[in-house]
Parts: sequence; structure tokens; C-alpha cells
Amino acid sequence: MPYALIARYHVIPGNAALVEATLREMAERIRADEPACLAYQVNVDPDDENMICLYEVYATAEDVTAHRETQHFKDLIEGVIAPVLQRRERELYRQVIS
Amino acid sequence: MPYALIARYHVIPGNAALVEATLREMAERIRADEPACLAYQVNVDPDDENMICLYEVYATAEDVTAHRETQHFKDLIEGVIAPVLQRRERELYRQVIS
Repeated sequence: MPYALIARYHVIPGNAALVEATLREMAERIRADEPACLAYQVNVDPDDENMICLYEVYATAEDVTAHRETQHFKDLIEGVIAPVLQRRERELYRQVIS
Repeated sequence: MPYALIARYHVIPGNAALVEATLREMAERIRADEPACLAYQVNVDPDDENMICLYEVYATAEDVTAHRETQHFKDLIEGVIAPVLQRRERELYRQVIS
């Protein structure tokens, strides 16, 4: 059963362009290396460039966990993006219609 | 530029199956009638079947508005689903990576 993840990144002002560029690299790495990632979309609040909302879909709950163990997650999300966030939130859902 | 919409439906207990079935019909109507709708996905909180999270993507901001004017939106969302919700919330985003 697919699982959808909504991750919200509250970026420290001045770092929005860095975060977006890093997420573009992340999307490429996922496309190349994670066939179980069915969607990886990045959205920005039109009124606040520092509020970034990721929408990700994985084939199974195990694939969500495996995503966080990848080298690109460690390098790009934890290494580059996490240090420039004020905070982050995460919601996990069962997908019923796609 | 695409726009992504996150809609959260807090369902009055006892109506989750009705809402999911109606959203399935909605997805079919959208697939048939709204080519500018690029994604229409329905997700459920694994710990609370009454918390439903829709993720929708439209080609432009105008297509988001047009979606709410369709007959299927009026019949199914406003006619069938809205009366069995405790409340609903809505977030609109510019999509930057898909």
C-alpha cells in the first residue's frame, strides 16, 4: 500500500534559494536511485518563500523508512538543508486514491 | 505555473466510507473532465480514518478556481461531502519541483 508524506520546512530567512536548489538535486538523486518513490514534489507558500511543503509518495511504508537511510537523504537533507531550517514537521498518510 | 492544493477533511465519525467512495467518484469525474488537474490523490491518517488529506495539482491558478466551479465539485464535494465534515482546511502552494 502506498504511503504519502507531507514534510514542511520552515527555512531561516536568506536560505530559500539554497533549499530549493538542494531539493532539485535531491529530486534527481531520487529519480535515479529510488524507484519506490512514486512522487517527490516541492511546493512553496506563495506568500512566504521560507515555507516549503514537500509531498512524497512511496510504494510501501518500508520504502519511506529506506528513503531516510539513503546517502542523498543524509548528505542533502540532513547535511545541507536541516542546518538552515527553523523547524520541520512531518505527516504520514496511507494513500487510498491516486 | 502549477499550483498544489492540500485540503484536509475532518469527517464526522461514521461517514469515512461515504467520503472515500465519493472521492473515488470525484477522481473519475476529474480524470474525464479536467485535463488541467495534474494530480488528485487522497490520503488517510493511519491512526484516524476520519482525517482525510487531499493533494491536488493544477496546471495554473485559474484551473484551481475552475475546479471549484465544476458540476462534480458542486454535486459531490459541496453536496455530499461537506455536510458530513466537522471542518475543512485548505492550503495553496506554488509548485516548484514535480
